[in-house]
Amino acid sequence: MEEIVIKFVGRKPSLKNPILIEGLPGIGNVGKLAVEHLIENIGAKKFVEIYSKDFPPQVFINSDGTIKLVNNELYYWKAKSRNQRDLILLTGDYQGLSSSGQYELADSILKIARDYNVKQIFTLGGYGLGREVKEPHVLGAATSKKLVSKMKKYGVVFRENEPGGGIIGASGLLLGLGKLYGIEGVCLMGETPGYLVDPKSAKAVLVVLSKALNIDVDLTELERKAKEIELIAQQLRSLEEGLRKSKEDLSYIG
Amino acid sequence: MEEIVIKFVGRKPSLKNPILIEGLPGIGNVGKLAVEHLIENIGAKKFVEIYSKDFPPQVFINSDGTIKLVNNELYYWKAKSRNQRDLILLTGDYQGLSSSGQYELADSILKIARDYNVKQIFTLGGYGLGREVKEPHVLGAATSKKLVSKMKKYGVVFRENEPGGGIIGASGLLLGLGKLYGIEGVCLMGETPGYLVDPKSAKAVLVVLSKALNIDVDLTELERKAKEIELIAQQLRSLEEGLRKSKEDLSYIG
Amino acid sequence: MEEIVIKFVGRKPSLKNPILIEGLPGIGNVGKLAVEHLIENIGAKKFVEIYSKDFPPQVFINSDGTIKLVNNELYYWKAKSRNQRDLILLTGDYQGLSSSGQYELADSILKIARDYNVKQIFTLGGYGLGREVKEPHVLGAATSKKLVSKMKKYGVVFRENEPGGGIIGASGLLLGLGKLYGIEGVCLMGETPGYLVDPKSAKAVLVVLSKALNIDVDLTELERKAKEIELIAQQLRSLEEGLRKSKEDLSYIG
Amino acid sequence: MEEIVIKFVGRKPSLKNPILIEGLPGIGNVGKLAVEHLIENIGAKKFVEIYSKDFPPQVFINSDGTIKLVNNELYYWKAKSRNQRDLILLTGDYQGLSSSGQYELADSILKIARDYNVKQIFTLGGYGLGREVKEPHVLGAATSKKLVSKMKKYGVVFRENEPGGGIIGASGLLLGLGKLYGIEGVCLMGETPGYLVDPKSAKAVLVVLSKALNIDVDLTELERKAKEIELIAQQLRSLEEGLRKSKEDLSYIG
Repeated sequence: MEEIVIKFVGRKPSLKNPILIEGLPGIGNVGKLAVEHLIENIGAKKFVEIYSKDFPPQVFINSDGTIKLVNNELYYWKAKSRNQRDLILLTGDYQGLSSSGQYELADSILKIARDYNVKQIFTLGGYGLGREVKEPHVLGAATSKKLVSKMKKYGVVFRENEPGGGIIGASGLLLGLGKLYGIEGVCLMGETPGYLVDPKSAKAVLVVLSKALNIDVDLTELERKAKEIELIAQQLRSLEEGLRKSKEDLSYIG
Repeated sequence: MEEIVIKFVGRKPSLKNPILIEGLPGIGNVGKLAVEHLIENIGAKKFVEIYSKDFPPQVFINSDGTIKLVNNELYYWKAKSRNQRDLILLTGDYQGLSSSGQYELADSILKIARDYNVKQIFTLGGYGLGREVKEPHVLGAATSKKLVSKMKKYGVVFRENEPGGGIIGASGLLLGLGKLYGIEGVCLMGETPGYLVDPKSAKAVLVVLSKALNIDVDLTELERKAKEIELIAQQLRSLEEGLRKSKEDLSYIG
Repeated sequence: MEEIVIKFVGRKPSLKNPILIEGLPGIGNVGKLAVEHLIENIGAKKFVEIYSKDFPPQVFINSDGTIKLVNNELYYWKAKSRNQRDLILLTGDYQGLSSSGQYELADSILKIARDYNVKQIFTLGGYGLGREVKEPHVLGAATSKKLVSKMKKYGVVFRENEPGGGIIGASGLLLGLGKLYGIEGVCLMGETPGYLVDPKSAKAVLVVLSKALNIDVDLTELERKAKEIELIAQQLRSLEEGLRKSKEDLSYIG
Repeated sequence: MEEIVIKFVGRKPSLKNPILIEGLPGIGNVGKLAVEHLIENIGAKKFVEIYSKDFPPQVFINSDGTIKLVNNELYYWKAKSRNQRDLILLTGDYQGLSSSGQYELADSILKIARDYNVKQIFTLGGYGLGREVKEPHVLGAATSKKLVSKMKKYGVVFRENEPGGGIIGASGLLLGLGKLYGIEGVCLMGETPGYLVDPKSAKAVLVVLSKALNIDVDLTELERKAKEIELIAQQLRSLEEGLRKSKEDLSYIG
């Protein structure tokens, strides 16, 4: 069996210098939330399924009782106006389990990207702060100084030595390996506590991305999800607060 | 050395559109118990031994002092009447140790299955509930809605979002990869506490499977084993109960 | 780089149906001690060095400051009389780190063995009992019933279901894979506490082996080492005894 | 994707029997500190970037917001006088994550070395003592007795059975595999506590190396860094001392 199995679904689309946008599971699931929202909102269509021996040996069960082997998927969207660009969108159930598998997957995706003449990549992810975030900034990193300047105009924040550990996983590799292949790229990282899935951070990332892509994205659904998560977070906090107080009371009595 | 070594034993059987049935070690060993019982009961014959670098580097010692390298094995059985189908049965000592090895093994087995023109797979396993199970249901998942409907008629239960984590290991992979190869499949999962090997759950799975295959299977041996295990389980429970009471008594005295 | 690098040292020896004897690191280091003693005692000569990516990335430093990349090695010995057989002896610094690497190594060694027309293998190891052993028995396992009978004559003990977990590592794999290649084999396991290296157990194994091979082996050096280890074991035991008593005294006073 | 990607940067230099010098991350980062200092001090130029699937899937972010895929790098330097030799210097962000990956990397580097007709290697590293080191000695190991004698003249210390565990990682493998390829080599290990990065130990190593290479190396920058680290170490020690005293006081009061 091949390390990675690429399966085209339906007719191969004809795309004009598309931009590749990645959002796979990660911190706060920010990237995956953002790209899945984008796919649904603009009506992108699946055209590639990617299977790998480095994904878990697992199938999911759909609500109708049918199964789905875990994978990554590519969607495409064709530009509606002159100031837009065709898009390829990458999302999926997992990132590779091993370092080696992650390199293989990024490499395979870049090869498809090159076949479609992709010259630019956006990778989306979360930047975990380990604390509450009122208004998440979107931090950036890019393959060239020119792109850094360009991104600053869209409100992307570039802070020296942040994130300190660099970027780990597909969001980093697609830029790093892509650069070797001569493909430019930007990573957009929404600040997030990192404890729960974070639609608020995903929204912040999409606000920046929609400017860069000249695409109107309806964000109400993400805002609704963000409120749900905020509610859950509040309940968790009051629960913790309650526990803390009980302990204080007990130690007082004791 | 090849990743996987396929060794045919004796003459290759000639089979007509056989159905593949898998039962490898897993939760409650339900699948392995079921398939091994079936093999013995219908008198299926071994025709393939499968060795893999992803199995542990281990030999077992038979009661006569001879050794056996750990493996997976395929057995075949030829239909006795018109409303039956030829069978290939898969069982073995281990599943692959790594994710990659599990994909390789499933892929190798599917290649043999394709050579024999297999169009349908049943994978058997346990669904661990972590609690006592009076009368185990048999949960299902399948590669198509049509198969889901068909299986419901045999008493298979399809519950939305169960099992929540999907199906992990060979039982899932054979269906997931099989689907990519155009082979239909069903996974039958017997409910089980999951603590001990569970012949009762294996019996429940075989009751469903024997209906689907139009095969009479004598289940008395599994029932006998189920009673043995039930006895062991009762002894463990009364032991726990005893321990719990001793603690209560001590805390009362103390 | 190849998975495994086979390097012949000096001229390839010409051997007549040699017997392969394996003794690699393992429980009580019994197998390695036995084979290394045998190599030295009969004056066997190194003719192959085996390097593998599955050994640790490590060099040892010799007493003269020079380095040695960790490896496995093959030695040969030519029969001195008609009732003896030529020998190939395998020992080394490590077994493979991964399951896959262990299969590769065993397979590579068997390929060399086949080139030399090896028809029989002895693998040597320890059987860890986790308790003191006065007079270690030598347990056995073999690739055929005929060999089991033959070995019983040399005092080898075959106990049903012992060792319970079978044989793990090179001692098992060389027999298991060897059997697939049509090579007969016996594993001799000296009983050992398993805590310390165990020359006494290695001696017991060599007593059996020397009978099977019709070779006189001077065991005084192993007996000397066994006495050293026995002394260390006694010191450890009296240390433990002392600690235990101190605790009792303290609890009495307290 | 290849296991390892070798990317030449700019024109391939023409070098005359260069010496290879390795300094990758390790204990006290001694080797990496030494080689990076040497590269900067003699003005060596990068000519090869080495990427590997066995490095972490990670990019670093430069201070200007651009990214860098983690790698190893080769630099070259051309001799300025007759009694000097051309140099190839190896440093990098990581060593391989797995044993197998480390062998692959060492092998790839040795293949480049052979293409450049390298006949001698120096590998640099730290020897962790787990205690304070006033004046670090430089311990050695080499591929031949002749080199051992030669190195003693430069003040390198050879102690029997030290380091006890041999040399692990690239510093060991380049010598061990190099020896198989007929390349001579020396490992220089600076004594170090091993807790913090250790420029003092790196300096000691460079003092020896500069003699062996007939190169003047300005060590003031390393001395400056060593003073910084010494300050940090003192602060840590007084912090620990303070903690220890507080505990004593408390136990006195208590």
